[in-house]
Amino acid sequence: MRSPTRVLAVDPGLTRLGLGVVQGSVGRPLEMVHVDVLRTPADLDTARRLHRLEQGLEEAVRLHRPHVVAVERVFSQNNVSTVMGTAQASAVAMLVAARHGVDVKLHTPSEVKAAVTGSGRADKAQVAAMVVRLLRLAEAPKPVDATDALALAICQIWRGGAQNRLQQAHAAAQRKESLR
Amino acid sequence: MRSPTRVLAVDPGLTRLGLGVVQGSVGRPLEMVHVDVLRTPADLDTARRLHRLEQGLEEAVRLHRPHVVAVERVFSQNNVSTVMGTAQASAVAMLVAARHGVDVKLHTPSEVKAAVTGSGRADKAQVAAMVVRLLRLAEAPKPVDATDALALAICQIWRGGAQNRLQQAHAAAQRKESLR
Repeated sequence: MRSPTRVLAVDPGLTRLGLGVVQGSVGRPLEMVHVDVLRTPADLDTARRLHRLEQGLEEAVRLHRPHVVAVERVFSQNNVSTVMGTAQASAVAMLVAARHGVDVKLHTPSEVKAAVTGSGRADKAQVAAMVVRLLRLAEAPKPVDATDALALAICQIWRGGAQNRLQQAHAAAQRKESLR
Repeated sequence: MRSPTRVLAVDPGLTRLGLGVVQGSVGRPLEMVHVDVLRTPADLDTARRLHRLEQGLEEAVRLHRPHVVAVERVFSQNNVSTVMGTAQASAVAMLVAARHGVDVKLHTPSEVKAAVTGSGRADKAQVAAMVVRLLRLAEAPKPVDATDALALAICQIWRGGAQNRLQQAHAAAQRKESLR
């Protein structure tokens, strides 16, 4: 049996940044270690808001020492002004992880939905219900950013192993090819 | 005469980030203190690229101790995938400034062009020619990101004072209003 992975997952945003730490491995019960939402006031300038998020993320990484930081991949199709803030908040999360030498993995919202519910088109309520069930919680953490971060962490634990095995197989095939 | 302002200006980008430090005040000759371009390899993951930019920006802020950090405002109208990288790089610049308690000011490309050449629709060559002239350089620094950063720094020095005076007048008027 492989040792469990501890994932810190970030649902990025300037106003609310969802943060979830989940530990587990494929085929074993998952454990919720931590869940939180970092908030910054809308009347603060962007630079200071990013700095506050950095402080919260730095604290979370130091405290929980994750093996992987998973960040929701920002969608360029969405509302453009929201996307900018989301991209900036995700940059801070990636930066803090890189500073601690922790690998960063990105997943799209539909990858998360598919991993957790079996359908990439599941709605928020279905995702929340599965998060509650998989982590054996009394109810879904509020606001929804917190639940979304937990869903992302679960997605990373379940897909991460497969991603790594695919990458390793691919790298091995390339090495074999180059030896011919 | 007011004491000169030292501005560190950032033309943000993941592949090339232009960085210029200019010192001066309105109506006095400007002085170029530093110009550089930070580069990160495209085959590195985004998290590590942002971390490298952070290290370069951190070094520049420590070394040059700017009074203001000016960052080019990211345009949402442009190519969306480029915008994401630019938004993320600008987040790192803002974050580093905020961490050092340095104010961040944003200017759009057309504000920079208008400040430096008198026309918001000036082309790259006109901007470069004015940067060379105003900073008494032998030629425009290459690549263009470096020259753009210097133009942004000049814009901040020239517009910054006016912005502050307007803000002060506005704040004073509000105080007066609240005393009635």
